[in-house]
Amino acid sequence: MMEKRLRCEKLKDKLMTAKEAAAFVKKDMTIATSGFTPAGYPKAIPLELARRGEAGEKLNLTVITGASVGPEIDEKMTNAGVVARRFPYQTDRTLRKAINDGKVKYQDMHLSHVPQQLKAGFLGHIDLAIVEVVAITEEGHLIPSTSVGQTNICVEMADQVLVEINTSQPLELEGMHDITELPLPPYRKPIDLTRPEERIGKPYIECDPDKIVGIVECDIPDSPAPIVEPDQVSIDISKNIIRFLKEEVKAGRLPKNLLPLQSGVGNVANAVLKGISDSDFEHLTVYSEVLQDGIIDLLIAGKVDYASGTSFTLSPEMNARLGEELPKIKDKVILRPVEISNNPGLIRRLGVIAINTALEFDIYGNVNSSHVSGTNMMNGLGGSGDFTRGGYLSIFTTQSTAKKGLISAIVPCVPHVDHTEHDVMVVVTEQGYADLRGLDPVERARKIIENCAHPDYKDQLEDYLNRAIKESPGQHTPHILSEAFSWYDRLKETGTMKIDQ
Amino acid sequence: MMEKRLRCEKLKDKLMTAKEAAAFVKKDMTIATSGFTPAGYPKAIPLELARRGEAGEKLNLTVITGASVGPEIDEKMTNAGVVARRFPYQTDRTLRKAINDGKVKYQDMHLSHVPQQLKAGFLGHIDLAIVEVVAITEEGHLIPSTSVGQTNICVEMADQVLVEINTSQPLELEGMHDITELPLPPYRKPIDLTRPEERIGKPYIECDPDKIVGIVECDIPDSPAPIVEPDQVSIDISKNIIRFLKEEVKAGRLPKNLLPLQSGVGNVANAVLKGISDSDFEHLTVYSEVLQDGIIDLLIAGKVDYASGTSFTLSPEMNARLGEELPKIKDKVILRPVEISNNPGLIRRLGVIAINTALEFDIYGNVNSSHVSGTNMMNGLGGSGDFTRGGYLSIFTTQSTAKKGLISAIVPCVPHVDHTEHDVMVVVTEQGYADLRGLDPVERARKIIENCAHPDYKDQLEDYLNRAIKESPGQHTPHILSEAFSWYDRLKETGTMKIDQ
Repeated sequence: MMEKRLRCEKLKDKLMTAKEAAAFVKKDMTIATSGFTPAGYPKAIPLELARRGEAGEKLNLTVITGASVGPEIDEKMTNAGVVARRFPYQTDRTLRKAINDGKVKYQDMHLSHVPQQLKAGFLGHIDLAIVEVVAITEEGHLIPSTSVGQTNICVEMADQVLVEINTSQPLELEGMHDITELPLPPYRKPIDLTRPEERIGKPYIECDPDKIVGIVECDIPDSPAPIVEPDQVSIDISKNIIRFLKEEVKAGRLPKNLLPLQSGVGNVANAVLKGISDSDFEHLTVYSEVLQDGIIDLLIAGKVDYASGTSFTLSPEMNARLGEELPKIKDKVILRPVEISNNPGLIRRLGVIAINTALEFDIYGNVNSSHVSGTNMMNGLGGSGDFTRGGYLSIFTTQSTAKKGLISAIVPCVPHVDHTEHDVMVVVTEQGYADLRGLDPVERARKIIENCAHPDYKDQLEDYLNRAIKESPGQHTPHILSEAFSWYDRLKETGTMKIDQ
Repeated sequence: MMEKRLRCEKLKDKLMTAKEAAAFVKKDMTIATSGFTPAGYPKAIPLELARRGEAGEKLNLTVITGASVGPEIDEKMTNAGVVARRFPYQTDRTLRKAINDGKVKYQDMHLSHVPQQLKAGFLGHIDLAIVEVVAITEEGHLIPSTSVGQTNICVEMADQVLVEINTSQPLELEGMHDITELPLPPYRKPIDLTRPEERIGKPYIECDPDKIVGIVECDIPDSPAPIVEPDQVSIDISKNIIRFLKEEVKAGRLPKNLLPLQSGVGNVANAVLKGISDSDFEHLTVYSEVLQDGIIDLLIAGKVDYASGTSFTLSPEMNARLGEELPKIKDKVILRPVEISNNPGLIRRLGVIAINTALEFDIYGNVNSSHVSGTNMMNGLGGSGDFTRGGYLSIFTTQSTAKKGLISAIVPCVPHVDHTEHDVMVVVTEQGYADLRGLDPVERARKIIENCAHPDYKDQLEDYLNRAIKESPGQHTPHILSEAFSWYDRLKETGTMKIDQ
């Protein structure tokens, strides 16, 4: 098995146990790992680090990943108390609690900013890279597994590299990656990419074999969440998006086969893909960060011609048959470094249609993607800002209510802003969509309330807006500041944002 | 005089009075004009439109400019009631009041977004372009004056074009422009620019002469604001920025001659430039949107090797001797379309150091650039977002207090967010700077309060932060939402944000 995967003669004596490899990790180190969404992250060595923490060792590590990773790092290492600082994104319940409790210091970052900041030294010196691969080439180069993320930068910047060769990842992934690295400024050349399907780099990450201090065999699979069938709300949101896109085509503002699509992660995103597969759109392309099950189905069905991303986040079912499906789509999919997939210049150049999920938005179109009730970190904003700001069209979706209607996802004023009114063109709920282009704040508010708010909250929102306009005239963006966040206080006190009638 | 400036034979019979030209403007039209800051905007025809409004005509115009423009448009036309809708930026007192009163609908936009949205039809059909030039070539092409902005897009997209040849603008401007136009996606090629000094386009705007329906001679000069000598606060802010930049060079995170600089408009920006000219930095470059007096001095002094922007906003004194100064700096300055100067991909590629002014920021690093007390529109965010998000380093400056200390420019929670915590690396006041890179929200808050807040407000801010942490544990970004905006209520009630001791 390992013969096919560890092809570099001079590295064969670096094979060791996970425990031996983990011994390279010392107190206070900054570790950068592969992994983007729970795909392609190292597993065996992190489990050893967790064990050391459980045994009482105070490791106090800074852990930098491409995006969220699986439980071996974010749950187990957190529980073992070995993570002191964490960048740039996470989706783990245990880590989330530690972050909100202040036990783990967390900076929520635009994912496209991470590689450059790593390289520029803004996040400190990288002591050690721990990366998962499917194989090491004869020259010692690394073939990533189900994600690229910032693995190339980890390998470049770290003093030492530990490699996990994961035998549960299909060798068919080889050839699907396209690794380009950007130098630091000044005098950077243009990135020579004009279509999602273009290859501009190498199928492996170059690595000086002398930097590799340990290689570990691992067979623990990725830990993607199961994908549930879209519920009615997701289907309705998806229908509203497709209705909007069709209107744009009709008005001549979009080509018939649209423009490269980016869609966030989750059930709404999957419902949108499913909706598109049932629509009459054809010859679509995808330029996104995360490729989910839906994309693979669309590629096989011939609806999507090409898909570019930085990671495969697949359901356990799709993951199980990935080796079998890959040959069918291999020439239609490219996995790139996040510095390329999320590059603001490329997103702008390609004209990406960005579709992302909001926790909530306010009547003026400001979006909260990260903080529940403004203070409690959920996951982070991930790459949503990269695609939203640079995209040709920027769309945000949310269900109009949460907690069985007790919470309105449209509020007078979001208590945390991840995407400003300047960045958000269209907001969509299951109720409808509001196209905000060219509108002033009050016009935006009227349209959002009318088209997107849940009927249970329309009167309340209108009442707030009307009083804000009336009570303090002469405000471009009317607010009653003493009341702007009162919906969260009411929620805390009464269990709902609804005003008792 | 006009012989040198109107060189196209077939257009000579299009010369007419401003009144005749203004007659092409009909009710309900959308007009796109040249002009970026009060530089290079049309004057004579707008004054005629204002006269028609004063005479009782209801024109109901949508007016789209590159950025702010001078009083002929934003003051006179607003006062005459002919402007119904206005994009994307303004700095005029009269227009500001009309916007806040809801009489003029205004959308505050990222300036880099405007050309693409105009071209894509997102802002509606453009009926008429009104553009100022220094000359029309033999072929009928247009040579812009002191700004480019989105003039090239206006000309391309409008059904008809009116031209003002401004004889007060020096003909020496000819040759300083570099006009490149980007097609709409898909399949856009990379923009072939790797250094601020590179020319990639033509020195004129191509225009089909048949589209030009009227040409007006005008001698009204640009209306830039006088530049006052930097006060002590601006000088102190500038010193703190330079101290930060020197630390970065020392730490190896910036080259000795820095990276291309962008700095906003105003006295702090000018003080920064003056500070740089007094420092030992050399061979600097500028990749910015607005070039102010300071840059010209730095070019002549040999401190700055090259400067690229989209407009000259000069003091009346510098404006008066512009014709004389231009030959000295002509090969060192390039004026580009805003689509290029503010292009997120280029800003990222070149690694621009973005220095912009905030109205206020909060303890977590969120910046309000546009709304006084969260509701009242001041100017807009302009290009600050284009440079901040894409820049290698993003810096925001403000005086730590306003209104003689009655207002703190550092608050618990800004009531309007133009730049999120994810986008802001360094904040600077006259008190000091806070480097926020790699810090979690509470760490950021402690550092901002310690380094940047005015001593009069430190205790109040610390008290808020400590109570927010204590009263509701388990919050990544601690807030007491019922109190977060209370500083604005106190200001309204007592005339100061200070808590009565």
